[in-house]
Amino acid sequence: MDHPITIAIDAMGGDQGPRVVVPAVLRTLARYPDRVRIILVGDQKLLRRSLRLHRAIESERLLIHHASQVVEMDEMPSMALRKKKDSSMRVSLNLVKSGKAQACVSAGNTGALVATAKFVLKTLPGISRPAIITQLPNMASDAKAQAGTRVLDLGANVDSSPERLFQFAVMGSVLTQAVEGIEKPRVGLLNIGEEQIKGNEQVKETAAMLSQCDAINYIGYVEGDDMFTGVADVIVTDGFVGNVALKAAEGSAKLIQHLMKKAFRKNIFTKISGIIVLPVLRLLRKSIDPARFNGASLVGLRSIVIKSHGSTSVFGYYHAIRVAIREVESDVPQRIRHQVEELLKEEQGNSDSSPSVE
Amino acid sequence: MDHPITIAIDAMGGDQGPRVVVPAVLRTLARYPDRVRIILVGDQKLLRRSLRLHRAIESERLLIHHASQVVEMDEMPSMALRKKKDSSMRVSLNLVKSGKAQACVSAGNTGALVATAKFVLKTLPGISRPAIITQLPNMASDAKAQAGTRVLDLGANVDSSPERLFQFAVMGSVLTQAVEGIEKPRVGLLNIGEEQIKGNEQVKETAAMLSQCDAINYIGYVEGDDMFTGVADVIVTDGFVGNVALKAAEGSAKLIQHLMKKAFRKNIFTKISGIIVLPVLRLLRKSIDPARFNGASLVGLRSIVIKSHGSTSVFGYYHAIRVAIREVESDVPQRIRHQVEELLKEEQGNSDSSPSVE
Repeated sequence: MDHPITIAIDAMGGDQGPRVVVPAVLRTLARYPDRVRIILVGDQKLLRRSLRLHRAIESERLLIHHASQVVEMDEMPSMALRKKKDSSMRVSLNLVKSGKAQACVSAGNTGALVATAKFVLKTLPGISRPAIITQLPNMASDAKAQAGTRVLDLGANVDSSPERLFQFAVMGSVLTQAVEGIEKPRVGLLNIGEEQIKGNEQVKETAAMLSQCDAINYIGYVEGDDMFTGVADVIVTDGFVGNVALKAAEGSAKLIQHLMKKAFRKNIFTKISGIIVLPVLRLLRKSIDPARFNGASLVGLRSIVIKSHGSTSVFGYYHAIRVAIREVESDVPQRIRHQVEELLKEEQGNSDSSPSVE
Repeated sequence: MDHPITIAIDAMGGDQGPRVVVPAVLRTLARYPDRVRIILVGDQKLLRRSLRLHRAIESERLLIHHASQVVEMDEMPSMALRKKKDSSMRVSLNLVKSGKAQACVSAGNTGALVATAKFVLKTLPGISRPAIITQLPNMASDAKAQAGTRVLDLGANVDSSPERLFQFAVMGSVLTQAVEGIEKPRVGLLNIGEEQIKGNEQVKETAAMLSQCDAINYIGYVEGDDMFTGVADVIVTDGFVGNVALKAAEGSAKLIQHLMKKAFRKNIFTKISGIIVLPVLRLLRKSIDPARFNGASLVGLRSIVIKSHGSTSVFGYYHAIRVAIREVESDVPQRIRHQVEELLKEEQGNSDSSPSVE
């Protein structure tokens, strides 16, 4: 048996709180019988009631840690940081800092989570800010395999400098290497055209830096639709652009689902054909199920923090916990730290900016 | 009969050139028998052959104007501007400038079209750069009605200042008013969250300017998915963000179509159900058919220039010509000029920045 992995869970975060979190945690404990321990953080009374409701009890593997406060979904990050020192979110992060847990999962307020995680856990040496990275389904993924393109940053930062975008590329590449076992992940830079002539200054400068770096398998510019074509394993962009692009993609997927439902409801014939086609639609839904891709990592921190979507399902939250487990098993922060150190050393050794040696 | 509308068509532009353009033009002439004239601009010999192929002849309503050069799809805009003075694109724009046509349609190189159109036609007084605006399908649109959300800028500019974003809002609002007959189009500003706290400086400053302006029905921040929810008639954003978001949305729609095809091909049962469900899928495809939404306007110029997608179908190109006709009928550039003049007057009269009177 491996050493047990302990995950601290912000049980109060998200739109549903314990109603989604607790069954997802129970599912995790059942699926990982030997090696996972969970600390549920939040209102003790409420959490005990929720456990009873699911016929579960506290145990060696399922602990409750009381926290008296909750960060609201619309609370200002600075206020959460200052006034909510005993929030379920903050206490979960403290458990990671003190080494009592190896990772934290939260479905809470994204801005507050980024700010609090950065304050409590600190960024790795050489990394100025954490970024949000998640995996998206693409043409190459199917209902079973988990392959997909990872995109960062998805909104932890707005207005990122080329230096920061370069750091995102390093972090995305190392994380994908570690978690997926891909030796040289293909890294693309999001731009508005594949030609050299297009793009803003920020993107052009980043491209120049990435072209110089042997440690990154930089494949050049990619466009918005390449988030789903599978041409890259990692796509790097500013948090503002990444966030808007992700939501635009979700919006267009929702529109298609809406129109499909409408088309099937049109008349008795379409209704019957809708029933006939149900198994196919279920398969389709499974392939692009946001729950299967739930669980974004805050990379660049000294420890592992996973952000779940605020309104995810039990299965979706379970998937976010799985992402945390995989990152603990792959030792992601240490690997990023090591790679960044190597790159910084190279830079010092190559201040004449000649191509670096791997 | 109204005065005839004359449209100059860059017949060589796009991936297909005359093969798509000529049948689309013939369709237009058939559908608008009284009031539209077309000038096909490009290689005379090639265009005559193409007309013969479609059993059409030159006439009062269908003229050919020779142009000896073609702007390549991957050509640098600055090179096209300097070296391609007799390109089908440039000559089409010249015809608009000289008043021989009221609008130009091109499926050519976007960067070259923006640069050449700006150089030949000039921007309206008070407008620093043109923007690309197009209509997207949303939850409220159906297969018949053309209602949809307009988004700008989609890539004519990168790194737009708040002043420029404000101009985009004015232009988008006036265009929607003119073409759709919506009295006070709802204008949203694209951001990464609806809360006041989020967003970058550029967006926050633009929001402050829009809140002060009575002439614009500003509804606040919207997110990426709102490009498809129908909460706004016009969504304003920087060209880099808009372009990436649009392509991300296209990418996710294509992924769903790809997965749907795959699901239907799985076995004999799914193949049969795919045939049964064909009419429904056709209806769905029609609702989100990119061809129906083809035809983006270069707003902010002194005349009308419509950009067709480079790889559109005959029906798609026909739709782009229709967009040109509608904008000529609605006198869009003059209305934008008028509105901008009013706003500039107000600003001079209200330099104490008190709320302006409409």
